[in-house]
Amino acid sequence: MCSVISRVKPCHRALAVSLRLRTNTDSPSYAATQSRRFSPGVSSGVEPLRVASRSYSSRTAMTEGLLFRQLLELESKTYTYLLADTATKEAVLIDPVLETIDRDLKLIGELGLNLKVAVNTHCHADHITSTGLMKKRLVGLKSAISKYSGASADILLSEGDKIPFGKHCLTVRDTPGHTDGCMTLVMEDQSMAFTGDTLLIRGCGRTDFQQGCAKRLYHSVHQKIFTLPDQCLIYPAHDYLGQTVSTVGEERKFNPRLTKSIEQFVDIMNNLNLPKPAKIDISVPANLVCGLHEV
Amino acid sequence: MCSVISRVKPCHRALAVSLRLRTNTDSPSYAATQSRRFSPGVSSGVEPLRVASRSYSSRTAMTEGLLFRQLLELESKTYTYLLADTATKEAVLIDPVLETIDRDLKLIGELGLNLKVAVNTHCHADHITSTGLMKKRLVGLKSAISKYSGASADILLSEGDKIPFGKHCLTVRDTPGHTDGCMTLVMEDQSMAFTGDTLLIRGCGRTDFQQGCAKRLYHSVHQKIFTLPDQCLIYPAHDYLGQTVSTVGEERKFNPRLTKSIEQFVDIMNNLNLPKPAKIDISVPANLVCGLHEV
Repeated sequence: MCSVISRVKPCHRALAVSLRLRTNTDSPSYAATQSRRFSPGVSSGVEPLRVASRSYSSRTAMTEGLLFRQLLELESKTYTYLLADTATKEAVLIDPVLETIDRDLKLIGELGLNLKVAVNTHCHADHITSTGLMKKRLVGLKSAISKYSGASADILLSEGDKIPFGKHCLTVRDTPGHTDGCMTLVMEDQSMAFTGDTLLIRGCGRTDFQQGCAKRLYHSVHQKIFTLPDQCLIYPAHDYLGQTVSTVGEERKFNPRLTKSIEQFVDIMNNLNLPKPAKIDISVPANLVCGLHEV
Repeated sequence: MCSVISRVKPCHRALAVSLRLRTNTDSPSYAATQSRRFSPGVSSGVEPLRVASRSYSSRTAMTEGLLFRQLLELESKTYTYLLADTATKEAVLIDPVLETIDRDLKLIGELGLNLKVAVNTHCHADHITSTGLMKKRLVGLKSAISKYSGASADILLSEGDKIPFGKHCLTVRDTPGHTDGCMTLVMEDQSMAFTGDTLLIRGCGRTDFQQGCAKRLYHSVHQKIFTLPDQCLIYPAHDYLGQTVSTVGEERKFNPRLTKSIEQFVDIMNNLNLPKPAKIDISVPANLVCGLHEV
């Protein structure tokens, strides 16, 4: 059983607005995919993943009584995740985007769900969250974000906190590095982890803006995510190549950045030379107040 | 157990090229999502889906020993599906796209899979398939498409044919209407159906080009897809709103077109007034020969 969320705090909008904005970005670079010839069953220079059957390669985790939907916002390539208990209909929404609020609310209504919590994995810089507007439309909905994000929300989360919905729950792991307030949300049976921008599929969030710290991100991934079971499914906040899911086992073996030494990783991250995200100057101020700042 | 694919035929490129091209399109219109206020638990004018727990709302089907990956080609919004037996590593790829061939082959190589069959649900008009080029890169790979598509492939499929991979298999259901050669591929336990452009999430493929026939599509959906179990997951060839999956139960209840009478449906489809797809004149000739025509 999951413990009840223990920290429910009022929105501190004045406090949040008065904070000096420490910007970070959400658009990681990604190594260009190289054209290669593969001949499965024939040596191709690639050593494939070798793990026991039904580990990395199981198509899904086997959590019973769980509704799960992955939804994509096509402009910012942000993934929103809807999870619900099929018996009680209690639901949680992860990283909802302002532009897709109508799509998401329509689906929640059609499925007859009772959305309890809308949680952001961090204070996004590339899009505006819909949590604030969603609270205006859904009776009883609570917003949630990391206490280290500097953002206001009904629920401020940190390591070990649980977000229950019906018989299920998500547990918070603090995974700073992309921003101070980045979290990874892990299902109770460790079948799925929602990694935000900390760990992307064969990539990771950038660390070259304020709050960003390559060393912290490296330690977060290795200590808080790569310690999950190999078969744990990785659901990131973004993907820019049309990939939808990975596993801990795959990323431990194939992530081109996180498989390096910490020194090599820091060097990679310090030399990405990425452009400033287009929406950072409107997204961060808005997301510090649930997306409702001057919107 | 699944029967072995019975029809393996050589590519009839000359025949295909000599065919008169009968064009169709892949870009359905989609009713604009309306802004609505929902209050779960409070009457909102929307009657949510009421079905038994673990039916429509189970997050996944529970097929054991199955690897499953959904992949998106971002320009044409085409979904490619990779399925594999986790024990034997035999794999099937559904609707692969030329632009993402390197991504897909890289993943197949990393996972150590032996790709046996690359199958198109129909002769696409909005993108070029990668099946032909993939055959040049992967030893032993066979291409497959409906015998009614007019396209060449190693394997020409029709109603009841099975595509085995390890202990799993996909069964063909002919579902014409968007084109003559549209198929829906159904997992052996009816947990998932790959519907191509026949049934989309809350929509369907257009029927206003050559081969297209609204009445045929309506009957295909009602007779071949809506007769599957409510909890069967629907994986379409496209989605233009960032949705990734639906269920038979949801579409039976909420599809704004297919819930209508056949007369109303035909009227809707005859009045979509959609523009001609941008790539139809290069995609259809190429896809009639596994994507290799003048590419």
